[in-house]
Amino acid sequence: MNIIITGGAGFLGQRLAKALLQQQQIAFDRLTLADVIVPTSPLADERVHCVQADLGDQAAVQALVTPDTGLIYHLAAIVSSHAEADFDLGVRVNIDATRYLLEAARHQAPGCRFVFSSSLAVFGGELPEVIQDHTAVCPQSSYGMEKSVGELLVNDYARKGFVDGRVLRLPTISVRPGKPNKAASSFASGIIREPLQGEESVCPVALSLPMWLSSPATVVENFVRAAQVPAEAFGASRTVNLPGITVTVQEMIDALRRVAGDPVCDRIRYEEDEAVSRIVASWPGRFNISRAQGLGFVQDADFDSVIRRFIADDMEGTKQ
Amino acid sequence: MNIIITGGAGFLGQRLAKALLQQQQIAFDRLTLADVIVPTSPLADERVHCVQADLGDQAAVQALVTPDTGLIYHLAAIVSSHAEADFDLGVRVNIDATRYLLEAARHQAPGCRFVFSSSLAVFGGELPEVIQDHTAVCPQSSYGMEKSVGELLVNDYARKGFVDGRVLRLPTISVRPGKPNKAASSFASGIIREPLQGEESVCPVALSLPMWLSSPATVVENFVRAAQVPAEAFGASRTVNLPGITVTVQEMIDALRRVAGDPVCDRIRYEEDEAVSRIVASWPGRFNISRAQGLGFVQDADFDSVIRRFIADDMEGTKQ
Repeated sequence: MNIIITGGAGFLGQRLAKALLQQQQIAFDRLTLADVIVPTSPLADERVHCVQADLGDQAAVQALVTPDTGLIYHLAAIVSSHAEADFDLGVRVNIDATRYLLEAARHQAPGCRFVFSSSLAVFGGELPEVIQDHTAVCPQSSYGMEKSVGELLVNDYARKGFVDGRVLRLPTISVRPGKPNKAASSFASGIIREPLQGEESVCPVALSLPMWLSSPATVVENFVRAAQVPAEAFGASRTVNLPGITVTVQEMIDALRRVAGDPVCDRIRYEEDEAVSRIVASWPGRFNISRAQGLGFVQDADFDSVIRRFIADDMEGTKQ
Repeated sequence: MNIIITGGAGFLGQRLAKALLQQQQIAFDRLTLADVIVPTSPLADERVHCVQADLGDQAAVQALVTPDTGLIYHLAAIVSSHAEADFDLGVRVNIDATRYLLEAARHQAPGCRFVFSSSLAVFGGELPEVIQDHTAVCPQSSYGMEKSVGELLVNDYARKGFVDGRVLRLPTISVRPGKPNKAASSFASGIIREPLQGEESVCPVALSLPMWLSSPATVVENFVRAAQVPAEAFGASRTVNLPGITVTVQEMIDALRRVAGDPVCDRIRYEEDEAVSRIVASWPGRFNISRAQGLGFVQDADFDSVIRRFIADDMEGTKQ
């Protein structure tokens, strides 16, 4: 069996590839990492094939999906602030590429498992105190709109039996290693990562803002689990609000202070960015996750441990 | 100002055109009726222009939207059972054509009002007793999926200021005049219309099924109103669950009996159609319509008066 990860050069794609190569529950003989820039393999393993492919090009997508493909992780996307700034590009990658991939799977590897990475950014507008499984999406960004469209497509392709779809709505991921990106939520990693690495970081939102967070390790663990949930367990909807933890920006900084001390926290500068605030403040901070937990998805313990794990795993990584 | 109605040859498009020509609140000097078959004008009025256009052809859509277009009613669609039987056609017309029209409006008539005809078919799965404004869609048909995608697109185009969008989720329309169509809900008109016209009609669903219904006249009235609601009244979502009335299939037949007598009702045959039942039973039968009413949308009084109006207005029409 072939597994495809789109966005395979990205941070999550690389982590997921490594996790898949190291686990035993899902058997496969090929792992195809596809991205607009040619990915590198996160481990020396001859099962890994790296492919440069623009998913906005339907022929490239068709060439990617081989008949032995049994599992596709569709992570490739134009992130939130980028999609807001360039509407046409966001639609092309976040909607059209998803359609090309679903069509290729339907015709070339029918019935294959298809795990789609969605986001809490589908929610917005007047929100209830706690998001429930039956809470309507109301995206206040083009990224959120495009992810909502992808969710609907994956669900209908699953209902029709074209693919065996699963949609994971990811919390904001913190702490991401590496550089800031064009996601509106980029600061949620930056205000922890940069100060720990001796650099200044700007907090562009109100300290009282509640964030719905998950560590990279937990998200990757949930991606691996997503492929193993029996199809019939999902019921009428393949969409799952993944577990996260609710932490205000102030509580994130308090946790950083407990773990790393005052001098580190003093590297955070506070300067509101209206465009970022408007997008991030439209996202919900609390979810009912009983269905997700019932399906076997997991949750971080608290944000202190998330920071500690970042220091142990990722700051060593950056020094290598 | 030019007004465009897509699906202008259809039953609703024709009714809406007539209503627009007869009202005074919305001033315009041209009314363009577009459809895959060339529409005819419902009234002799030199403001009416009839255009044959395949909306699945992007160039045809671009040619349709003139710079003086101030209002577009997008009614054209592949209906529910048809879209379920021909997935690719449904996606092409219900998603791609909607995108073409939104793009043409954005670039050629920016900011124009764009009224999108959606449907209660966006709902399904585990439903609450009463649908609220914040109830999540969970389409159990490709038609419902495609309409949900259209809703998201229109909302985001409105948020970005590309068009001034409004989305109306229509109840099942009963009583439609004319012939049965490929909508799963076709029977909801057929079991009233055919017996009244001396013909047999098949009821393919359980008598206990609650339906969410609106008369054609009320839906058309609400389309005219939709163009006049101030944009700021909508808040974070341009999508409105239009008012309807909750009537079980049994209550529909009881109303027919009160209005037209036993011999007419004896022309209804009961023969369950599993495919139709599955789609129709997945739709909700009760909605909270306080927001819709607050925005000025109206409701039928009861189903007896709906039948009486059909007899007065439409059965005379068919004899002409």
